[in-house]
Amino acid sequence: LTHPFDIATTLTARSEGRFAGETSPAYWNFAGPFGGIAAALLLRAVLDDPRRQGTPVALTTNYCGAIKSGAFEIELTPERTGRTIQHWSLRLVQGDTVTTTGSVVTALRSESFAHQVAAMPTLPPHADVARAKTPSNLPWLSAYDFRFLQGPAFTPPPAGTLGPSRTLLYMSDVPSRPLDYASLAALGDAFILRLLQMRGRMAPMSTVTLTTYFHATEAELAAQGTAPLVGVADASRIAANFHDQQMQLFGSGGGLLASGIQTVWYAE
Amino acid sequence: LTHPFDIATTLTARSEGRFAGETSPAYWNFAGPFGGIAAALLLRAVLDDPRRQGTPVALTTNYCGAIKSGAFEIELTPERTGRTIQHWSLRLVQGDTVTTTGSVVTALRSESFAHQVAAMPTLPPHADVARAKTPSNLPWLSAYDFRFLQGPAFTPPPAGTLGPSRTLLYMSDVPSRPLDYASLAALGDAFILRLLQMRGRMAPMSTVTLTTYFHATEAELAAQGTAPLVGVADASRIAANFHDQQMQLFGSGGGLLASGIQTVWYAE
Repeated sequence: LTHPFDIATTLTARSEGRFAGETSPAYWNFAGPFGGIAAALLLRAVLDDPRRQGTPVALTTNYCGAIKSGAFEIELTPERTGRTIQHWSLRLVQGDTVTTTGSVVTALRSESFAHQVAAMPTLPPHADVARAKTPSNLPWLSAYDFRFLQGPAFTPPPAGTLGPSRTLLYMSDVPSRPLDYASLAALGDAFILRLLQMRGRMAPMSTVTLTTYFHATEAELAAQGTAPLVGVADASRIAANFHDQQMQLFGSGGGLLASGIQTVWYAE
Repeated sequence: LTHPFDIATTLTARSEGRFAGETSPAYWNFAGPFGGIAAALLLRAVLDDPRRQGTPVALTTNYCGAIKSGAFEIELTPERTGRTIQHWSLRLVQGDTVTTTGSVVTALRSESFAHQVAAMPTLPPHADVARAKTPSNLPWLSAYDFRFLQGPAFTPPPAGTLGPSRTLLYMSDVPSRPLDYASLAALGDAFILRLLQMRGRMAPMSTVTLTTYFHATEAELAAQGTAPLVGVADASRIAANFHDQQMQLFGSGGGLLASGIQTVWYAE
């Protein structure tokens, strides 16, 4: 496994319910790994646990504090295992410090009544949209290929105005990598924070909690392979130091592979 | 406190990080309290904990199994307390059985840059919309006043067709009760499950995990008082035994008071 994403999310089993890992510079943000890596690490721990039953349905990641460069451990507990649904609780710790908590739902899924409500927006071909230039000071931004159709990031709006809250873009791993649940979890957090995009300038802000639902089956992930995803993100309300942010990730065929929401803290 | 909601969500402190409670028949669903009560109970434990700092920002409730009639305990841990943000983990247990897990974020919030993206839909006056008749076999449905503008529940669509996935309605507590964070948490789960509404017939299904974000400040809750909320709900994808469901709850002035998503399991 030589892809930077695999290196950044590799865990070593220590004992039942305990994995060890090491931070990786490839997905570094301001002060710690970009939040999508923490989410992927929690999911990876569940996926690697021999007690796990089924595939991911839901993941909530709570960002309690920055993960410092170096070693960490993930403790996980299967809270309840039913006939088809399993509930997990997780903590990522560095020594006595809890940096991240979370919960995961996995399930044995089968063919069933199916209906998709959310329609994928119409876009020009991927090759016709230029890859965005991203600031080089944040390594994680270079780990993705972003192609913006709406809501261009890294472009300040005219002074005194707000840029759009909605973003529509193509997203993919750099270098390309076949999609799996862990990378889908990370991609779900790879949207620029709405307030940063709308104001076009950095100010203290960070994701506080992130919930991602996995709609894709393993067959759909395999069919997607390394093809770019179509992402949509928006906010609903920004007030009193917090704003929410919704996201949808569609596959090439228009199937909704994942959706979710997050809460972002901002300073002023 | 004689309102059924207060009776159903009253907790007694047992020791630091441990509360005791008793189920109440008023909000009963098929097999246990309706999910909004479990969410409100987790939030109530945090609100009642003397270590709590600030007001609710986010709540994730994982429904591991039905809460049986009778006594239960809630264990909660403040995982991390920062200058303004606090992270909590929770478990609702009955004996050795974990029925519910969850996480809560609270924060000291202040005036800040603010902008609302989500617009409240236009509706006729509350008094001009009839209260829906709800099935009497599920007590929790009688604990709310539902007035549907779109996506009527309890009305099967024509045979062989699907009803709308989107619902727009007025919602309020019965009897009326001033809005607070706990009742807002419960109202966030008081939308009919999307697949039940779309098919118009009951089949095995239940909420697996629910995440609610609280946008309202205490002043906004006080201003809302007992006035009905405007609720919007929709689904994005229904596939392989699970569907998601989004919701928004607006106050009388059009302010978005809460928003969230849930994952629903269904049998076929």
